[in-house]
Amino acid sequence: MHPTITAFETSPDRGRGLARDMRVRWAFEEVGQPYDVQLVSFKEMKESAHRSRHPFGQIPTYEAGDLTLFESGAIILHIAERHAGLLPADAHARARAIAWMFAALNTVEPPIVERSMALILEKDKSWYEERMPMLDDRVRVRLGELSNRLGKADWLDGAFSAGDLLMVTVLRRLDGSGHVEKFPNLAAYVARGAARPAYQRAFAAQLAVFKNSKAS
Amino acid sequence: MHPTITAFETSPDRGRGLARDMRVRWAFEEVGQPYDVQLVSFKEMKESAHRSRHPFGQIPTYEAGDLTLFESGAIILHIAERHAGLLPADAHARARAIAWMFAALNTVEPPIVERSMALILEKDKSWYEERMPMLDDRVRVRLGELSNRLGKADWLDGAFSAGDLLMVTVLRRLDGSGHVEKFPNLAAYVARGAARPAYQRAFAAQLAVFKNSKAS
Repeated sequence: MHPTITAFETSPDRGRGLARDMRVRWAFEEVGQPYDVQLVSFKEMKESAHRSRHPFGQIPTYEAGDLTLFESGAIILHIAERHAGLLPADAHARARAIAWMFAALNTVEPPIVERSMALILEKDKSWYEERMPMLDDRVRVRLGELSNRLGKADWLDGAFSAGDLLMVTVLRRLDGSGHVEKFPNLAAYVARGAARPAYQRAFAAQLAVFKNSKAS
Repeated sequence: MHPTITAFETSPDRGRGLARDMRVRWAFEEVGQPYDVQLVSFKEMKESAHRSRHPFGQIPTYEAGDLTLFESGAIILHIAERHAGLLPADAHARARAIAWMFAALNTVEPPIVERSMALILEKDKSWYEERMPMLDDRVRVRLGELSNRLGKADWLDGAFSAGDLLMVTVLRRLDGSGHVEKFPNLAAYVARGAARPAYQRAFAAQLAVFKNSKAS
């Protein structure tokens, strides 16, 4: 029995790989572990069966034997602790890679999500035009800081790690906004992540799910 | 040499224990490990010496020997992996406690921070009155889901863990908003956390720093 994750039956991103199951698929591919996927509809996500897996009614979840986890960051850390390929062996480098996991999710992602939410939920509001530049500024500040730290390096701290995996997926949420392109080293960093064979396999897998949902 | 963390020289919360060094102080107290504190001014936080510790120019950071970490979640996980008292010994329970750490920081905290940011930065904007109910709704939804999962339990998953430590500090950011009080089990949960002797010691330590900064 492979671990089973949940993913959107029909992803709202139309197969662009921006949903959070992409992160977990990518992690499995990096460590070479097979996994199963259970698709859930928007309705099912908010019902008690799924809520028992995920208190906040979201995807992805992870089930293996009698262990159930939620939160993409926690699932990826769990995979990384069990299989080589996502965290360095050196204890200090490992701790720093985990710091980048938290930084991706708690420092870089929130202003990006806030901007995306405004795009989706506040586009028709009277304040949208005036407020959007504030949100763009917050994103720009974070990206500038990240760009400064990355410098000319390929990855955030030595070899590719789960910290890079999460950071690349977080930055990919800005696709189409033009934000990342203003920082050439960050654009190259995202492209470097997306060029990894493991990323490509994960991307193809989630895209196949979306295409299938439209074909049926 | 004890590990050294950084904290605000003069905390913008005026010693209410809402700054992120509180979390790390509390974690050290739970595991009974002494720590040193280096205070940094707002100016110093944005200078290169501090940026080398924290790419995003924030507090807290953690330094021990030649290891430097940032992100409160990562620092607390690092402490919890080295000292008993913050993560269960059982592997599955440990993974679930870590899931709650990520949930506190990536699912529950973002709408709370977004609401706080609006209070601070958008109070004078024309849209403030109309937009605030949207932000309150997002917070209410998350708290409702958290309240449902907690139910009548003392802690989120068995014994007190680093997941509870982070969740309590995240919920405390709503102090004064009336949000948590609408869910009696969450209010009791926060009170339960704040009543722990380790919390009390950490709170007193950060308050002393603030009082000192005003006395000098």
